Amino acid sequence: MKVAIVHGPNLQLLGTREPEVYGKETLDDVNRALGKLAAELGVEIETFQSNHEGAIVDFLSGARGRVDGFLVNPGGLTHTSIVLRDALVGVGLPFVEVHVSNTAGRERFRRDSFLSGVAAGVVFGFGIHGYLLGLRGLAHRLAQK
Amino acid sequence: MKVAIVHGPNLQLLGTREPEVYGKETLDDVNRALGKLAAELGVEIETFQSNHEGAIVDFLSGARGRVDGFLVNPGGLTHTSIVLRDALVGVGLPFVEVHVSNTAGRERFRRDSFLSGVAAGVVFGFGIHGYLLGLRGLAHRLAQK
Amino acid sequence: MKVAIVHGPNLQLLGTREPEVYGKETLDDVNRALGKLAAELGVEIETFQSNHEGAIVDFLSGARGRVDGFLVNPGGLTHTSIVLRDALVGVGLPFVEVHVSNTAGRERFRRDSFLSGVAAGVVFGFGIHGYLLGLRGLAHRLAQK
Amino acid sequence: MKVAIVHGPNLQLLGTREPEVYGKETLDDVNRALGKLAAELGVEIETFQSNHEGAIVDFLSGARGRVDGFLVNPGGLTHTSIVLRDALVGVGLPFVEVHVSNTAGRERFRRDSFLSGVAAGVVFGFGIHGYLLGLRGLAHRLAQK
Amino acid sequence: MKVAIVHGPNLQLLGTREPEVYGKETLDDVNRALGKLAAELGVEIETFQSNHEGAIVDFLSGARGRVDGFLVNPGGLTHTSIVLRDALVGVGLPFVEVHVSNTAGRERFRRDSFLSGVAAGVVFGFGIHGYLLGLRGLAHRLAQK
Amino acid sequence: MKVAIVHGPNLQLLGTREPEVYGKETLDDVNRALGKLAAELGVEIETFQSNHEGAIVDFLSGARGRVDGFLVNPGGLTHTSIVLRDALVGVGLPFVEVHVSNTAGRERFRRDSFLSGVAAGVVFGFGIHGYLLGLRGLAHRLAQK
Amino acid sequence: MKVAIVHGPNLQLLGTREPEVYGKETLDDVNRALGKLAAELGVEIETFQSNHEGAIVDFLSGARGRVDGFLVNPGGLTHTSIVLRDALVGVGLPFVEVHVSNTAGRERFRRDSFLSGVAAGVVFGFGIHGYLLGLRGLAHRLAQK
Amino acid sequence: MKVAIVHGPNLQLLGTREPEVYGKETLDDVNRALGKLAAELGVEIETFQSNHEGAIVDFLSGARGRVDGFLVNPGGLTHTSIVLRDALVGVGLPFVEVHVSNTAGRERFRRDSFLSGVAAGVVFGFGIHGYLLGLRGLAHRLAQK
Amino acid sequence: MKVAIVHGPNLQLLGTREPEVYGKETLDDVNRALGKLAAELGVEIETFQSNHEGAIVDFLSGARGRVDGFLVNPGGLTHTSIVLRDALVGVGLPFVEVHVSNTAGRERFRRDSFLSGVAAGVVFGFGIHGYLLGLRGLAHRLAQK
Amino acid sequence: MKVAIVHGPNLQLLGTREPEVYGKETLDDVNRALGKLAAELGVEIETFQSNHEGAIVDFLSGARGRVDGFLVNPGGLTHTSIVLRDALVGVGLPFVEVHVSNTAGRERFRRDSFLSGVAAGVVFGFGIHGYLLGLRGLAHRLAQK
Amino acid sequence: MKVAIVHGPNLQLLGTREPEVYGKETLDDVNRALGKLAAELGVEIETFQSNHEGAIVDFLSGARGRVDGFLVNPGGLTHTSIVLRDALVGVGLPFVEVHVSNTAGRERFRRDSFLSGVAAGVVFGFGIHGYLLGLRGLAHRLAQK
Amino acid sequence: MKVAIVHGPNLQLLGTREPEVYGKETLDDVNRALGKLAAELGVEIETFQSNHEGAIVDFLSGARGRVDGFLVNPGGLTHTSIVLRDALVGVGLPFVEVHVSNTAGRERFRRDSFLSGVAAGVVFGFGIHGYLLGLRGLAHRLAQK
Repeated sequence: MKVAIVHGPNLQLLGTREPEVYGKETLDDVNRALGKLAAELGVEIETFQSNHEGAIVDFLSGARGRVDGFLVNPGGLTHTSIVLRDALVGVGLPFVEVHVSNTAGRERFRRDSFLSGVAAGVVFGFGIHGYLLGLRGLAHRLAQK
Repeated sequence: MKVAIVHGPNLQLLGTREPEVYGKETLDDVNRALGKLAAELGVEIETFQSNHEGAIVDFLSGARGRVDGFLVNPGGLTHTSIVLRDALVGVGLPFVEVHVSNTAGRERFRRDSFLSGVAAGVVFGFGIHGYLLGLRGLAHRLAQK
Repeated sequence: MKVAIVHGPNLQLLGTREPEVYGKETLDDVNRALGKLAAELGVEIETFQSNHEGAIVDFLSGARGRVDGFLVNPGGLTHTSIVLRDALVGVGLPFVEVHVSNTAGRERFRRDSFLSGVAAGVVFGFGIHGYLLGLRGLAHRLAQK
Repeated sequence: MKVAIVHGPNLQLLGTREPEVYGKETLDDVNRALGKLAAELGVEIETFQSNHEGAIVDFLSGARGRVDGFLVNPGGLTHTSIVLRDALVGVGLPFVEVHVSNTAGRERFRRDSFLSGVAAGVVFGFGIHGYLLGLRGLAHRLAQK
Repeated sequence: MKVAIVHGPNLQLLGTREPEVYGKETLDDVNRALGKLAAELGVEIETFQSNHEGAIVDFLSGARGRVDGFLVNPGGLTHTSIVLRDALVGVGLPFVEVHVSNTAGRERFRRDSFLSGVAAGVVFGFGIHGYLLGLRGLAHRLAQK
Repeated sequence: MKVAIVHGPNLQLLGTREPEVYGKETLDDVNRALGKLAAELGVEIETFQSNHEGAIVDFLSGARGRVDGFLVNPGGLTHTSIVLRDALVGVGLPFVEVHVSNTAGRERFRRDSFLSGVAAGVVFGFGIHGYLLGLRGLAHRLAQK
Repeated sequence: MKVAIVHGPNLQLLGTREPEVYGKETLDDVNRALGKLAAELGVEIETFQSNHEGAIVDFLSGARGRVDGFLVNPGGLTHTSIVLRDALVGVGLPFVEVHVSNTAGRERFRRDSFLSGVAAGVVFGFGIHGYLLGLRGLAHRLAQK
Repeated sequence: MKVAIVHGPNLQLLGTREPEVYGKETLDDVNRALGKLAAELGVEIETFQSNHEGAIVDFLSGARGRVDGFLVNPGGLTHTSIVLRDALVGVGLPFVEVHVSNTAGRERFRRDSFLSGVAAGVVFGFGIHGYLLGLRGLAHRLAQK
Repeated sequence: MKVAIVHGPNLQLLGTREPEVYGKETLDDVNRALGKLAAELGVEIETFQSNHEGAIVDFLSGARGRVDGFLVNPGGLTHTSIVLRDALVGVGLPFVEVHVSNTAGRERFRRDSFLSGVAAGVVFGFGIHGYLLGLRGLAHRLAQK
Repeated sequence: MKVAIVHGPNLQLLGTREPEVYGKETLDDVNRALGKLAAELGVEIETFQSNHEGAIVDFLSGARGRVDGFLVNPGGLTHTSIVLRDALVGVGLPFVEVHVSNTAGRERFRRDSFLSGVAAGVVFGFGIHGYLLGLRGLAHRLAQK
Repeated sequence: MKVAIVHGPNLQLLGTREPEVYGKETLDDVNRALGKLAAELGVEIETFQSNHEGAIVDFLSGARGRVDGFLVNPGGLTHTSIVLRDALVGVGLPFVEVHVSNTAGRERFRRDSFLSGVAAGVVFGFGIHGYLLGLRGLAHRLAQK
Repeated sequence: MKVAIVHGPNLQLLGTREPEVYGKETLDDVNRALGKLAAELGVEIETFQSNHEGAIVDFLSGARGRVDGFLVNPGGLTHTSIVLRDALVGVGLPFVEVHVSNTAGRERFRRDSFLSGVAAGVVFGFGIHGYLLGLRGLAHRLAQK
């Protein structure tokens, strides 16, 4: 079982960007923690980050056949990118949506996600721990197939 | 560390109600699985289900001092009950919100939650496995305090 | 064939509450008239009234196996209770929705019903005579199954 | 007591149009069933169908003095025709609104009716049986005057 | 100078329909009063009434070349008929819009007119006297060309 | 019979302001034309212009007992001043609302008037000729009382 | 003259719940202060608190004949309960609506009340002192009858 | 293969109506061009124009059995006629929707079509050339069946 | 302790304007009653009325240093004047908002207030008695400072 | 080249009003700084402040012929005054709109301006320095004419 | 005459992505068919696909001078990209918008296009055959210039 | 003090794109003018243009430590890119938002900016001169820190 972790725009700033909202751990810390949990769960992972919607779509499109599902933190694209939704639906693999912050408690424009309705599951508000919950959820889902 | 699991209206129907949406496992199955994971995590739990908004508020209000946090599946009250939000904020303990189904992919009126914005974390769409993710997330959060 | 008649909040006030809107007959008058028509139609009925959303859900949930359908006047819950909708869908029996007054001709907030879209039929505006039409409609529907 | 049955646009297609929504019985079947019930109830009826809003208004306007009320299935005009509402209010006779399908459970644009708020009663969702319920309701109403 | 007076749906009911809203004078009274004023103003008129949107469009379309402008009371079509707007703009003659009642003080759905924005002038709320004001206004406008 | 003509904000600019929208005649021209028609109709008039909402309210309030009705062009206050509406309703005299331009064909924010719904009649789009139509309409209305 | 004081959901938490919003005095303090003022005003009071919408409706319905009016703090039900509105209108006694916090300055969803439009008066934002103002207002109103 | 070309309201004005929007060719020109292309494609056509919604519905309803599909320019009915949508769905033949002008670039109220969502294809903005594209598209679609 | 009573536009009409809405007592009656209560409470008052938003802002701005708070009935400015809100916030003294009528039960446009969210308390619906409740509330608030 | 600086309602409070939003400098400081920059740019200025919408309109109307453009801080009138927009458009001179605070980051009702769409340029969020930028922008614009 | 065919995001998935919505033919198939038709029409084409909004804008910007128009399937960018609209308008060449699926019959968020209003024509719902119709339409348009 | 000038999508077209909206000067002209003013102000600048949202985010993210603030013309991303807002907030440096055209006077969808609310200042409508005002404003702001 292999899973791709996809970090969307601005997640390269994790740990330095608005730490009161996103916490102090960096993207490397997150990837390391995911790697450790993945090993525990017997899941292989690869990680990807890009600030380019197009590059993320290229990645998702190219991952077909190589991975079984995606753990996606779409960042600000969550609320604006039909392209990302279409890519995920088009590729046809199950994916879990994760947000570090509690998007429901922030600005009004963060309330709706183009992805949630077609996700295999959604986790938000737990800080970076949410990535670990999301990976567990995705692994569980893939094991059921 | 002690956590109360609060099942809202109609969750007594779990396993028999719209199984294509909510799955085949019953509320007892869910509570058993939560008990097993809780033991693993060193968390004590108690469970409560009611179809009465008022009874849930009474329970939350009375649980202060006895528990450290709540894992809440508010059922249909999610989208309509400011009273429940006020109770959770008023009691002042961290809580995690769980939904069995993917509420974002269903009717429009299931899109907004009065609770999410004040939750310590939200999990939905994973079927009843979401309860387990939610318990992990809550335990993690309580351990941080 | 057995049918449960479910009267929602404030219907205990029938006959005394805003008679220019709801008429002068009491809930007992309504139940008697329903009993008479039920006998005529060869339908067994039981009646239930509560001002408690939770109690109505408990009743609906408990009636599975005992009745074949519901005739429901949800009162003010019509426009606000997703919980009631979920209960009716969850229990999975056909139900008819009745309103004594013409809800479409009153305040804006009485315009939308959470129940109508999943009802086997809807009757409103005929005063308490609507209950009788609703029972006929429900009996017809159950006979077709 | 005399009642005019008014079938709006596309009801000539009944029985052949989207049978999963509207059933298999034709307009003639409906009119025959209405005739039988009318005889039972001691009501005289005449029936009218047109795809022309204007023709329906002409008919309603011309029926004053000849009939005591209308049983109207306005078809798609329900949601768009202020002209039809004005005609019914202008003619000043009580009318009952009937829909074969459950309009509340279909597309969003079928949710609001220009007629319901000024109707003597509304029945929908019961299939063509709703016509019979509507006729009973109208007869009851006219008998009360 | 020749003007066509176009009375839309339900205006045949004038004098009998909701007299507290529309007054007691009939359409014939209106046409007679218009005839008298027209003579005074040196304007030739013809009058037309129909409950059929299509017939009104046919009339407008056929009147090109024969008249110089229209005085239109579109009745309930005011708020719903883009077809009527298109006909008036398509024919390309100046028209004045008249309403007997004060549409701004009635139901919300009578607030917007598809015609007003392309009219040479609008008069409403004066009862049937508004027709006379409208004719004066139209005559003035046509005299300016 | 005496009528006060009330010109609202910016009408002092008439004739110089956006002549393609408002025409080339000045406020004095308008008042002269109104005076001439008033004499013809046997109506006494006084005229008032102010750019101050408060001064207009003071004027309306003080005119009670001195005049029988108002002809009001409220200018930009039309769409924003509940105070003006309250003053007109509070003073309790019939008033006619006039606009020089076709407000329905301009910006969206000129579509709704706080005054129209309580006016004795509304005239717009005829250029300054609309004042004359409005005065006729008001005189007719006052003569009926 | 007798008045029932009705405290809605979560008011049992007064004094402990979000003290920066609701203050530090408990419900008992409030009831004591009300008792003292009632004595001063020559009004008899009884007090009731419940987290159950249904129980409040039962109480209101049962209080007819025993009391002359209600002083109601509906808590979170303010914005969601048509049932409560119907109960108050149905029972037919004058009631005053009180809120401890300034609901107009909080979340958007606290802006509209289903009760205010049918209340004999509304007081909010004064902290628990608002109860005393409300009682004075209600007593004044009842004395006028 | 036979196709009916249905021209809705005001299309009789083609060539004379707002030529900067709709071009200079008349309806006869359009029909001739369609005839020529149809011959080329081996499709038989008949053409129909009416300003009457009802007449169009009568035509569509009567064409069942005689034609295999419709090429429809619904004119102003596009945005207002649920009746037309119901007729097309009810008749059950594939249809293509054509507009001469670019409806998306005109007034806001021309933005939504009741027909597009159930059409076999939509073409707009190409001037009258769009009819030819639409016919090709429809013929292609019918050939696939 | 000194308080300024500020009466907004049209309150000079009190007692004569729509007495079924605003009652029969005049502004002088109100001021006299306020003076009496103020004396009782040991509060000094001054009163001010204007129909001019600008004059009210001048007054508020000039009252800084002379008074400790405001009792404001903003009349129709309530719903439209951001300027008034800015003045009250800018001056920085606590104020209480009073309305004579039940604004929540009247036209939709009286539902929202620009002032309430920044007021020290709001009282409405009690008729002119509300001024007295408001003065008590303001005095209580000022005493707490 | 001469420019009038127009300060709208509540700007007399500058320096004392909400200093965390508007800063500590007074209106005199602003005018002095503007005077200095104007001298540098070879522009003559005059300054005006009023809390009265009407007085501002009088001023703008009277400034025609005397000045070449306006630098306007409309204060709270920005979002509510169509009258002010009409005055500026009516007078026909170019104007620049300035706001001291970042109106886009404050309450929702400060988001839309009636003036911006017809301004020669808009500057906001720079504190009082924005006046200087605005004056430069206006001078540049006037120099281009 | 030369035309660039621009395929937006996710069109690389054509033939494999949701075949029930988009069909089974691949992008290569589409391009081949377009090439064949182009030859027939005497049009030269080049094709371009990218998942990157920015790359598409770069391409459009660079194609000026080299091509005469664009045939664009903007994919998910249709509904979200003002940047794409600005690029197409900025480059200033006519373009035709094509969608494979019937966007009007899918999710609500696919209903509005930022491009359609400025397109030379729009074709959707015909499956990949729509590309051919679009090319014909564009060629026709370019030939007219 | 160093500032990065960031030109968003389609600004490479400046001078050639819609010159009646954006003027005739090219991006190089703008950069040259900015360079000259920067030298005058003692500010160092670097300039960057991209049509790729992702590339802009990469640039902003990489500029931390190298520059003190940003002057951003986000082009069409203004109204659609939460990603860009997040990047600017995440990087944490002050930025000024500039638009060449008067976005408030164009299409409705250009009215709201995701950036303005978090900008240190906003300038629009002055043509390319706005860049110079923006640079002055940013330099002033940076000097204050």
